Amino acid sequence: MKVRFEKDMTMTGEEYRASLRDGRRVFHNGQLVDDVTTHPRFRVGVDSIAKGYDDSAPNCAGESEALYSFPRSVDDLRQRMALLSGWEVTRATTLESLLALQTVGEQMAVSEPQYHQRIADYVAFCRRTDRRCVQTITDAKGDRSKSPSEQDDPDAYLRVIEEDERGIVIQGAKLHISGAAIAHELVVIPTKRMKVGEEQWAVSCAVPVNSPGITILNTNPAPDERDFEYHPVSRRFGIPDGLVVFDHVFVPHDRVFLCGEVAFSASFAHALGLWQRIGGVARMADEADVLVGLAQLLAEANGLTSMHHIRDKIADIVIYAAMIRACLEAAIAAAETTEAGFVIPNEVYTNVAKYYGSAELGAMLRNIHDIGGGAILTAPLPGDLQNPETRALVDKYMRTTTDVSGIYRTKLFYSVRDLTADTYGGWWQVSSLMSGGGLHAQKLVARKNYDMARAKQQALIFIGEEEGRAT
Amino acid sequence: MKVRFEKDMTMTGEEYRASLRDGRRVFHNGQLVDDVTTHPRFRVGVDSIAKGYDDSAPNCAGESEALYSFPRSVDDLRQRMALLSGWEVTRATTLESLLALQTVGEQMAVSEPQYHQRIADYVAFCRRTDRRCVQTITDAKGDRSKSPSEQDDPDAYLRVIEEDERGIVIQGAKLHISGAAIAHELVVIPTKRMKVGEEQWAVSCAVPVNSPGITILNTNPAPDERDFEYHPVSRRFGIPDGLVVFDHVFVPHDRVFLCGEVAFSASFAHALGLWQRIGGVARMADEADVLVGLAQLLAEANGLTSMHHIRDKIADIVIYAAMIRACLEAAIAAAETTEAGFVIPNEVYTNVAKYYGSAELGAMLRNIHDIGGGAILTAPLPGDLQNPETRALVDKYMRTTTDVSGIYRTKLFYSVRDLTADTYGGWWQVSSLMSGGGLHAQKLVARKNYDMARAKQQALIFIGEEEGRAT
Amino acid sequence: MKVRFEKDMTMTGEEYRASLRDGRRVFHNGQLVDDVTTHPRFRVGVDSIAKGYDDSAPNCAGESEALYSFPRSVDDLRQRMALLSGWEVTRATTLESLLALQTVGEQMAVSEPQYHQRIADYVAFCRRTDRRCVQTITDAKGDRSKSPSEQDDPDAYLRVIEEDERGIVIQGAKLHISGAAIAHELVVIPTKRMKVGEEQWAVSCAVPVNSPGITILNTNPAPDERDFEYHPVSRRFGIPDGLVVFDHVFVPHDRVFLCGEVAFSASFAHALGLWQRIGGVARMADEADVLVGLAQLLAEANGLTSMHHIRDKIADIVIYAAMIRACLEAAIAAAETTEAGFVIPNEVYTNVAKYYGSAELGAMLRNIHDIGGGAILTAPLPGDLQNPETRALVDKYMRTTTDVSGIYRTKLFYSVRDLTADTYGGWWQVSSLMSGGGLHAQKLVARKNYDMARAKQQALIFIGEEEGRAT
Amino acid sequence: MKVRFEKDMTMTGEEYRASLRDGRRVFHNGQLVDDVTTHPRFRVGVDSIAKGYDDSAPNCAGESEALYSFPRSVDDLRQRMALLSGWEVTRATTLESLLALQTVGEQMAVSEPQYHQRIADYVAFCRRTDRRCVQTITDAKGDRSKSPSEQDDPDAYLRVIEEDERGIVIQGAKLHISGAAIAHELVVIPTKRMKVGEEQWAVSCAVPVNSPGITILNTNPAPDERDFEYHPVSRRFGIPDGLVVFDHVFVPHDRVFLCGEVAFSASFAHALGLWQRIGGVARMADEADVLVGLAQLLAEANGLTSMHHIRDKIADIVIYAAMIRACLEAAIAAAETTEAGFVIPNEVYTNVAKYYGSAELGAMLRNIHDIGGGAILTAPLPGDLQNPETRALVDKYMRTTTDVSGIYRTKLFYSVRDLTADTYGGWWQVSSLMSGGGLHAQKLVARKNYDMARAKQQALIFIGEEEGRAT
Repeated sequence: MKVRFEKDMTMTGEEYRASLRDGRRVFHNGQLVDDVTTHPRFRVGVDSIAKGYDDSAPNCAGESEALYSFPRSVDDLRQRMALLSGWEVTRATTLESLLALQTVGEQMAVSEPQYHQRIADYVAFCRRTDRRCVQTITDAKGDRSKSPSEQDDPDAYLRVIEEDERGIVIQGAKLHISGAAIAHELVVIPTKRMKVGEEQWAVSCAVPVNSPGITILNTNPAPDERDFEYHPVSRRFGIPDGLVVFDHVFVPHDRVFLCGEVAFSASFAHALGLWQRIGGVARMADEADVLVGLAQLLAEANGLTSMHHIRDKIADIVIYAAMIRACLEAAIAAAETTEAGFVIPNEVYTNVAKYYGSAELGAMLRNIHDIGGGAILTAPLPGDLQNPETRALVDKYMRTTTDVSGIYRTKLFYSVRDLTADTYGGWWQVSSLMSGGGLHAQKLVARKNYDMARAKQQALIFIGEEEGRAT
Repeated sequence: MKVRFEKDMTMTGEEYRASLRDGRRVFHNGQLVDDVTTHPRFRVGVDSIAKGYDDSAPNCAGESEALYSFPRSVDDLRQRMALLSGWEVTRATTLESLLALQTVGEQMAVSEPQYHQRIADYVAFCRRTDRRCVQTITDAKGDRSKSPSEQDDPDAYLRVIEEDERGIVIQGAKLHISGAAIAHELVVIPTKRMKVGEEQWAVSCAVPVNSPGITILNTNPAPDERDFEYHPVSRRFGIPDGLVVFDHVFVPHDRVFLCGEVAFSASFAHALGLWQRIGGVARMADEADVLVGLAQLLAEANGLTSMHHIRDKIADIVIYAAMIRACLEAAIAAAETTEAGFVIPNEVYTNVAKYYGSAELGAMLRNIHDIGGGAILTAPLPGDLQNPETRALVDKYMRTTTDVSGIYRTKLFYSVRDLTADTYGGWWQVSSLMSGGGLHAQKLVARKNYDMARAKQQALIFIGEEEGRAT
Repeated sequence: MKVRFEKDMTMTGEEYRASLRDGRRVFHNGQLVDDVTTHPRFRVGVDSIAKGYDDSAPNCAGESEALYSFPRSVDDLRQRMALLSGWEVTRATTLESLLALQTVGEQMAVSEPQYHQRIADYVAFCRRTDRRCVQTITDAKGDRSKSPSEQDDPDAYLRVIEEDERGIVIQGAKLHISGAAIAHELVVIPTKRMKVGEEQWAVSCAVPVNSPGITILNTNPAPDERDFEYHPVSRRFGIPDGLVVFDHVFVPHDRVFLCGEVAFSASFAHALGLWQRIGGVARMADEADVLVGLAQLLAEANGLTSMHHIRDKIADIVIYAAMIRACLEAAIAAAETTEAGFVIPNEVYTNVAKYYGSAELGAMLRNIHDIGGGAILTAPLPGDLQNPETRALVDKYMRTTTDVSGIYRTKLFYSVRDLTADTYGGWWQVSSLMSGGGLHAQKLVARKNYDMARAKQQALIFIGEEEGRAT
Repeated sequence: MKVRFEKDMTMTGEEYRASLRDGRRVFHNGQLVDDVTTHPRFRVGVDSIAKGYDDSAPNCAGESEALYSFPRSVDDLRQRMALLSGWEVTRATTLESLLALQTVGEQMAVSEPQYHQRIADYVAFCRRTDRRCVQTITDAKGDRSKSPSEQDDPDAYLRVIEEDERGIVIQGAKLHISGAAIAHELVVIPTKRMKVGEEQWAVSCAVPVNSPGITILNTNPAPDERDFEYHPVSRRFGIPDGLVVFDHVFVPHDRVFLCGEVAFSASFAHALGLWQRIGGVARMADEADVLVGLAQLLAEANGLTSMHHIRDKIADIVIYAAMIRACLEAAIAAAETTEAGFVIPNEVYTNVAKYYGSAELGAMLRNIHDIGGGAILTAPLPGDLQNPETRALVDKYMRTTTDVSGIYRTKLFYSVRDLTADTYGGWWQVSSLMSGGGLHAQKLVARKNYDMARAKQQALIFIGEEEGRAT
């Protein structure tokens, strides 16, 4: 099948699959993967993205509009939340990557107009070709106590090793790149502020996944297809994480968005951080509602809805869910508009929600486990539901009240285990915690963006020092 | 001085003071108080309300509009938050009481039009005479395991003991009535749902504080005026709490808003609860910003701003403050409009903020104490700042960095101690916790108002049971 | 090979393996397992128990003494903790089961001497034949709002369906039986107090795993042997959980320890609960030290040991570990001695440790994840360490400081992921939470055993009511 | 009355009072206090210490033995806990001070034998004269970012300004000295490690409170005697905190325990810290039991003992109390014995208990408040119980169940308010938090004393790296 790239229209799922057979160099467990679309460990992710393309085909105009343009009103912004939160991960990464680029693009419009233009052109290209991008930020970092220029191995942070009139050559590695192996574009940005003297590490650019020199090592929380029935959640949501190695990768100038201008080096990470975090909050808000629902379904399935401590634990999850959603609502309602008319969510509300949601997730899962009980782990296996002899035992001994069959309850436990107490559950918890930076980073950003001067003034007024402090 | 009651204008502070010399029967520590405006234990509260009247005089129209009318837009609602949060407590209680009455009034418009009309008339009366009202809800309750009609003493819940063509006679007591002794009107509502057979306890009405039969026993977190310098916070914010006894109190029919219609008995407490809680959240949001400011001022005064654990504790308070404000913003942004055009804050966001703010307040004060250190308690006394010999010692030994004098730092500690670790601090913590119901009540209301059906549906979709559960 | 059963000596690992080929009816995923010792999903557990036999062979006398006798001094008790905590799970279950039986045996010595004697004989038998037992307690339970006798299906709780001069016949199912499929003996006890009229459900007995009528459905957190390298923890500790079905299982009288005497029905669960919980605490104390060590190893491997927030998170885990161990020490130091000279750990300290350890585990894992970072999930796979090309990339990009190789760091992440964020990690968290009852159960038991009368007396003295309360 | 100082016997309360009329220079609120034994703000403290003397008179030998000698067995140590925890604060400060001195004395025995001997002589003197000592450690500190020698004002840390053959002259101030104004001896030690070049600040000595040059500014959580009835707790436990100024205070050599030997400068604070913290833990363990008792009394007085959320909150306090006591038990059980035969509690268990107890206290008080309700604040005043009219109202409206009178319940609320939500309550919370260092200090010490090397080894074994790490 011919790939309809470079045409102004939305891909189909099949076209997306075809587009991945492009010579990309993807490894799984030490083996080069011949075709990611058929490999059992990548299929879950490929299928979910393909489905995303197919689902959006009928309303492609609106989709593309939303995926590839900057929100220009609070309503726009609210609409983007659905894309950031949705189950198709590369839509979120595409949106986050391109919004981050455009946010910095605006900041550079006056002093570095060439980058501003290239970013605009690149976004237009992605829109025209309906490409899926991934943010590519975290460097290998080597010795954390040393700056990029002090490392034994200068590649510990991705850098420019050559430059000529055609473009630049970059080298290094980027870690934890969700979806890299099954997306189209790597949007490369510096992991942190670079200082004068570290120009070669101040680089941002966009690189197609199949570029010569790119190698991706993968891990994967998705189940093998033989285990789909036991993994009702991860069979639909699991997506590979890649360690992306750049070995002498050439990038033409028109895909270079920063090259040595250290003054802007931190802006990319900052912009991406904000969009990643609001995306994370949008997802957490939806996931928290799902946790409430699961807790209630578990309580009902176990026949425990009238027990006070069970009701109390469900109420704790309700509070968790409502707090996160309140912050999301507030971050949207209190959005700021840039000179260019870009609408950007409130940073403080975004960050505290990300912090709270991550920090308390474990306590909520503990509530889920306490409501569900040990059968989350020990509900008999899918094969036991096939064999009539064992199925009869499951039905007899796993049922509770008249309207809760043993089979239904067993399957409910599969979902809870898969989401909260198995491979994908572990991946989810760690990913939720680390996306957009760990707890310490969230605290730092929250504090930095909080209006401390106003708070001090309010405190002085409150304690009666209305004229300011009398030292 | 002549009291200008019954004229359509705003009182002055002096007129307010005069209006309190109305024969009201107020006790302090077993002694009948001759004049609350001059008694040392009531002066703080009286002064704060008088100041409130004087401050609002220049813009009386807008004030009255806000205090005595229902918000009809999101902007209206946001504006009310300033009144609910402000330092003048009886503005909040007036607003909360009248909004609660009007909320129920609308609900009764069809089936009990007489009450709907009386409430409207009463609100107009309060507006015309610029009166301050207090909500009067919590009954003595007697044995909590028994309902009102089962109590040994039927007065354990306030009730109607007589009724004739002129009005009703009520008896009982209401507890924890902040500001009762220095306000004008007691807005009486049932403390909870009454059942069929409990008609005599299903009573709501408005009663002037100086009505025959009203006796108020008081406690008071405000300092005696000799201690004002040591109490820079409570000298401005302390207000008496009253145990209000109703002994054969006559209420004319036009001030009766419920009398036996048990079907509406719970509506008042529910409506008041919502307005009390959003008021509580508005105050907590402002107080939390003050706590951040105080923490920062303490860190600066102690010269500890660069210590990591100090910064971390300040960040914790920042997160606390931002979470509460986010919920407040969300409760306003997601407000609902009733048929009558009344705009009412979102209940779930309001409740979870009230829960979170109350539940975490102690941890925040612990942070403040950990930042401030023992000198919060042991900073020398105001008299030590008067005596030149001791003042010199205070200045020498309480100072830290060049720009932090010992006198300033000592006074800062007064404010922190007064707000967080002294009589008013204890009052504040318990009041914050209990206003609008304790933690358990907040949880119940949050859970009741949360859309559980939607959460279950989201959970079913998430786990792949899109068609609904297959039991 | 001939199985040396019924001889007074310790088995070898090979003899243990042989003893499992006894016709037991074990299912995995709907398939009857021919030989648990060779099946890939049971091998991990079998190997760990076999190793336990072999390790203890040289010092068999002491081992047997400890495993099969009641502690009679505080030192004895302390020594048992090593067995309860050790990695060989069926030693803990054997010890817990037999201690629970003996605890109740003593209680029944006077009124039900036949059971007291049978229990003593059974313990001697287990000791003589070096058998591994599992506690078999949790019933299917059906509708939780109904008692055993009210269930639609009377088998929802295991019960006696026949009795004659030779013995009894039991029917029902027991859930969450760790190690059932690879142990020798099922020690059956009632899951809760039975009331008069529920005599048929008040049954305790011991049943060999290969008894006719026993069927075991299994789940398993252990990895398949192909994945051993990626699961350095679970490859050694994973053990199957069984849903054990009893279908017309005959039990001779000399293995019946309760049959209808409802007065003692709750004693078994109570006794087992205590021993399970102290075992759980002993394990948690050791595991918590391991968590501290892992946190420190992660911080060192990431080169982050001087960062304040990292040090703070490690300190949090130190506190967690020290609190649990302090409670364990106190539970031993404050042990009680029964009339028969049995030494039993302090119940209050045991329960609060179990509660605290379970409740805070999630927060500690969050700390571990925050210290370790996303590479816990995304460290390249074992196959990537085999292929020289990818191994070079791993070594280049996963290393940090000079003395931390990329290979070492990658393998460290395997352990952390396996223990905290993968299948076994989920199993561990839920098992830790639920073993000995969930959080609510721990709270109930802690409160029940706490000396409330003394606390009230202390409070009265403290508030100056030394003569007792003056109501 | 003649003071029987210098005789080998126990003082009476009257002798103690007489001993305070010794010319000491004590200020209250800028006023020089003529006689601390009759001043209304010091009487509570003086009375409590006098009562302590009288109570111990009959068994003076044992008392003195315990107060003035080092524990030499675990039983000895356990016995000391009663003294450290008791309500007579200066017994704790005496014991802590002298134990700290003796701990360091032993460490200096070889290299600084003169100090070792002087400390022994001083302890014997205190024992002979039955003196009460206070620890005097925290310096004014000035600019925290600078060391003692860098301060603008060298007196920011107490220092030696002169030395001759008779003794030394010291200058500076010490803060937060509980009981200073009503004790006999100030045991002065350095607040932290001094470096080479800071010899003049490395000073420890003992100074009588009435020494020329000593001035004490006081604050006080104790109530004025007119308010005793409303403060049933603080009327017995309140004790003044002093800012103790040393202005050219002469100290003879035989009372100097360190003078310039910077190598030992940190040992004093370390030793005192340990004894302060174990003392703090002993008190917190007893206080926590009192909190449980109060919670239960409140629940009973409110008639709420069967409500699930109330029971749950009481259980939370039970867990808190049992955790602290478990740590105390473990700290004693795992005590270490020095070469000199001194028995010293386990540092790790001591510190984590201090941390946990302080960190969670606020949450426990929140539980108390949530159980008690708003009447903690609003229960009518003592005068209302005197006036028959108001007393009748209190009795009618504050009673709950048949056996809970309104008067009893009102008085119970006084105690709870006084302890948890009033002046003394604030003092208690901040003091509990800060004694022995704030939370950060506790964490640092816990981590420093925890056996990290063992934990790492356990972790390596656990993950299968039994031979040690393979970097």
